[in-house]
Amino acid sequence: MKLLINKNSLLEAISNVQKAITGKSTLPILQGIYINAYKNTLTLIGSDIDVCIETKIDAEILEEGSIVVDSRLFGEIIRKLPNAEIEISTIDNNTIELNCQKSCVNLIHMDASEYPLLPTITEDTIFSISQKTLKNMIKGTIFAVAQDETRPILTGVLFEVKDRKLNLVALDGFRVAFRSEQLDCNDNKEAVIPGKTLNEVSKILEDKDENVEITFTNNHILFNIGNTKVISRLLEGEFIKYASIIPQEYKTKVIVNKNEILGCIERASLMAKDGNTNLVKLEIVDDNLIVTSNSQLGKAREEVNIILQGESLKIAFNSKYLIDVFKNIEEEEIIMELSSSVAPCVVKNKEVNNCTYLLLPVRVLNN
Amino acid sequence: MKLLINKNSLLEAISNVQKAITGKSTLPILQGIYINAYKNTLTLIGSDIDVCIETKIDAEILEEGSIVVDSRLFGEIIRKLPNAEIEISTIDNNTIELNCQKSCVNLIHMDASEYPLLPTITEDTIFSISQKTLKNMIKGTIFAVAQDETRPILTGVLFEVKDRKLNLVALDGFRVAFRSEQLDCNDNKEAVIPGKTLNEVSKILEDKDENVEITFTNNHILFNIGNTKVISRLLEGEFIKYASIIPQEYKTKVIVNKNEILGCIERASLMAKDGNTNLVKLEIVDDNLIVTSNSQLGKAREEVNIILQGESLKIAFNSKYLIDVFKNIEEEEIIMELSSSVAPCVVKNKEVNNCTYLLLPVRVLNN
Repeated sequence: MKLLINKNSLLEAISNVQKAITGKSTLPILQGIYINAYKNTLTLIGSDIDVCIETKIDAEILEEGSIVVDSRLFGEIIRKLPNAEIEISTIDNNTIELNCQKSCVNLIHMDASEYPLLPTITEDTIFSISQKTLKNMIKGTIFAVAQDETRPILTGVLFEVKDRKLNLVALDGFRVAFRSEQLDCNDNKEAVIPGKTLNEVSKILEDKDENVEITFTNNHILFNIGNTKVISRLLEGEFIKYASIIPQEYKTKVIVNKNEILGCIERASLMAKDGNTNLVKLEIVDDNLIVTSNSQLGKAREEVNIILQGESLKIAFNSKYLIDVFKNIEEEEIIMELSSSVAPCVVKNKEVNNCTYLLLPVRVLNN
Repeated sequence: MKLLINKNSLLEAISNVQKAITGKSTLPILQGIYINAYKNTLTLIGSDIDVCIETKIDAEILEEGSIVVDSRLFGEIIRKLPNAEIEISTIDNNTIELNCQKSCVNLIHMDASEYPLLPTITEDTIFSISQKTLKNMIKGTIFAVAQDETRPILTGVLFEVKDRKLNLVALDGFRVAFRSEQLDCNDNKEAVIPGKTLNEVSKILEDKDENVEITFTNNHILFNIGNTKVISRLLEGEFIKYASIIPQEYKTKVIVNKNEILGCIERASLMAKDGNTNLVKLEIVDDNLIVTSNSQLGKAREEVNIILQGESLKIAFNSKYLIDVFKNIEEEEIIMELSSSVAPCVVKNKEVNNCTYLLLPVRVLNN
């Protein structure tokens, strides 16, 4: 193998594929980056058990071939090289030589034939969505995946293609996060993607209108993002029927400025955190929402103007759950729909109907 | 106590005095910020055993008084309040009430009379130096203080006022860092300041020409920085006579671009780190300095153009020590003075004679 490549494009490719290399695999070769030089393209692959990331970049290939190099060391060396063209060539004794201006580095490599094969992707359902939109949808749901492994399926995010829409859903027993966007696709399909994989996918997605193409198979999902492919295994099992959980009716409707209520809850939560309860109480009356909290060290009282339709209400929440939701809603004004102090609260955008959050309240005796 | 104060000036003051509150003191009241309202000034104090920081800010004092509040919680609450005027007043039951727009927070406070007295500072030697210059001098020496406590005096930085100069010196048995600047002061004085304190001082110092005033007493040093005072205890004992350690003669003199040699050493060190030795070898010959390193995973060879005066030489170093020095020299071009592969190397600025670093080499058998 022998090739010439620009330092910065190589570094970007390394940083992409490294997102799959968790260091948790027991297979030593998965600590490495697989590098293949073929025709005018250099292909880099990083993977662990759950996820595999492949990136292609243009390079001047003088001699084709494949190697596997230690991911951490190779990445650090490339990062520190001058911003110039790098020559990479295999020499004797399982070694590659990197030459860049006056720098010369020799590095042991592993045998590319030992690198595990990628999962075969047979195309099934395929659709496209803008990178920016998908990135937002992931950000808006992923915080609600279950953190404990008692029900593994809940550690993932449901991708539901249905009625020409893509729905993303995450839930953990205390809350539901639901995002929905129009889709140009007539198929129906469901799959649950591990939260950890999606997290890495969202880091690769850019804030731009260019599309990402998504392919489902029975066991895998493939994200095609520009020159990068991310293949993730799916979680097995059936996701909870989320639609029936979300109440359609309510007795109290609150319209409130998102940043104002977020500020109130964040301040009140400082006091709530101190008692380890995270409990904040909301009192909705007339055109005010009053947030209170207290602990051994003191108490807080916050007030925010609202538009109230329907009945007055007192209700209490884990402040962390409220903050998660308010931080991830894009619109300035939001709607809260409530029915009683023990019934779930639904939070939505005011204008665009593309997100729905459900939060269970905390029952308190002296509410 | 009752007063009105701008949120941002209060927040800046809190963040200054919090630098002294390490949470390591066994005295619970030292987890708090002492707050005193007197005339038109609010004074905040944070301290632990070694260091004490006092900041004064303008405030509209409606009722004078003193309290102590929990540093972490008070700081977080103020940070989260709207950017507006805050009313702070003591109410019943050892409680203060903060009012800011529609936010109202009650917070338990501690008894100000229990707060330890500040050390009394009787003026002895006083001099002034620009904040920027002192910040630079601290940054350029503090990395070389000893990390282990076997010789406590070496965990500090020597402040030496001598011959109308301020010298800062740190050394740890492997290297010496020396910085020197002109001073308008005829006194002679020596004191050793704990590294940890100086670190906090350098965070408060700003990159500007305004002066910091320094006062020594027998046991303390006082930095007067704008409206902030930092008082630190001094380390007891005598500092090593550093001047005799630094050789004045050499056989080999190298002039080299600082960023180029830094890049070489950093790349070579990636390979050196892998073997846990950190060892890089330097070969100085003609107009080249060649840096090599190797480990089980590979080897690196780097070359940089130099101007050589005197003899060729091979020498080896712990790469971390070279990197520390090159990172902290301000000039583009630096001078290295060497005598043999087992004699210390002296590194200096090329133009301005205000810094001198000494590094012990590592003896290697097959050099």
